[in-house]
Amino acid sequence: MSRTTLDAIPCSIARTVDLAGEWWTPLIIRDIYLGLTRFDDIQANLGLSRKLLAGRLERLVEGGVLERHPYQDNPVRHDYLLTDKGNELVRAFFALMAWGDRWTAGDAGPPMRLRHDCGALATPEVTCSECGEPLTAERVTPEPGPGARIAHGTTGIARLFARPR
Amino acid sequence: MSRTTLDAIPCSIARTVDLAGEWWTPLIIRDIYLGLTRFDDIQANLGLSRKLLAGRLERLVEGGVLERHPYQDNPVRHDYLLTDKGNELVRAFFALMAWGDRWTAGDAGPPMRLRHDCGALATPEVTCSECGEPLTAERVTPEPGPGARIAHGTTGIARLFARPR
Repeated sequence: MSRTTLDAIPCSIARTVDLAGEWWTPLIIRDIYLGLTRFDDIQANLGLSRKLLAGRLERLVEGGVLERHPYQDNPVRHDYLLTDKGNELVRAFFALMAWGDRWTAGDAGPPMRLRHDCGALATPEVTCSECGEPLTAERVTPEPGPGARIAHGTTGIARLFARPR
Repeated sequence: MSRTTLDAIPCSIARTVDLAGEWWTPLIIRDIYLGLTRFDDIQANLGLSRKLLAGRLERLVEGGVLERHPYQDNPVRHDYLLTDKGNELVRAFFALMAWGDRWTAGDAGPPMRLRHDCGALATPEVTCSECGEPLTAERVTPEPGPGARIAHGTTGIARLFARPR
């Protein structure tokens, strides 16, 4: 399926979903983070088609989230490793994981825990860079930023981040 | 397109993507958070088909992320409002937005800023619930949690979170 490109929308969520939100992509990044860096291992773990996986990996390399490092010649085979950009995406995925742990894991509890280097089993929190307190939907007010579209007769902040026509 | 269900995978990222990661869904949630709570307004802002939007909203209501509140009878029309579960998802999306601001916004800068109730323009950070320090990919060690699948001859932590066969 050819999908609508979301990256024309002036919105950092749209652009992130465009690159990192394609079906399977978050789990491919998860597997690489957890140490499955080779094509066949990822394919076996997720059970998706080779063609789909190849396309997703190519997109992530082009987008600077992954880098290829050859581990074999003749034929050439690569490890896929996270770049700095990729590692920061993993950090954002920790916030999604925490939401899933809280709202989808049920009685069985979280499938995975994160041991922070402070020694604790951590619950990822989203916090304010300036005061360190929780950054929740109820405690922030969205404002147009420098990259917002110039508004012509627009009312309501959501319309600044509309899909262009 | 009928998609593979990801929620059979014992992983909170998979389950989150299954419910909240369908194409367009993060932007629908964004629009509702930003005050576009009615079907026609969301449809006009995102320019997606009415059929697709109706399906996505239905799924989010079923999943407990949104609630319908009637604002009109005859015909009945609804506002779509975020539940607590939905507001916490928005909080996780702030982390994705911060990544997009940093890595995709380019010279124009962030389209949207968040004013925290501490008064500052906040950059969303993902931090450790126990010590408050940054929770980054490099500073955590993943461990199996109580909801991990029981491993039979599995080597490598990623294989605990494989797609079931």
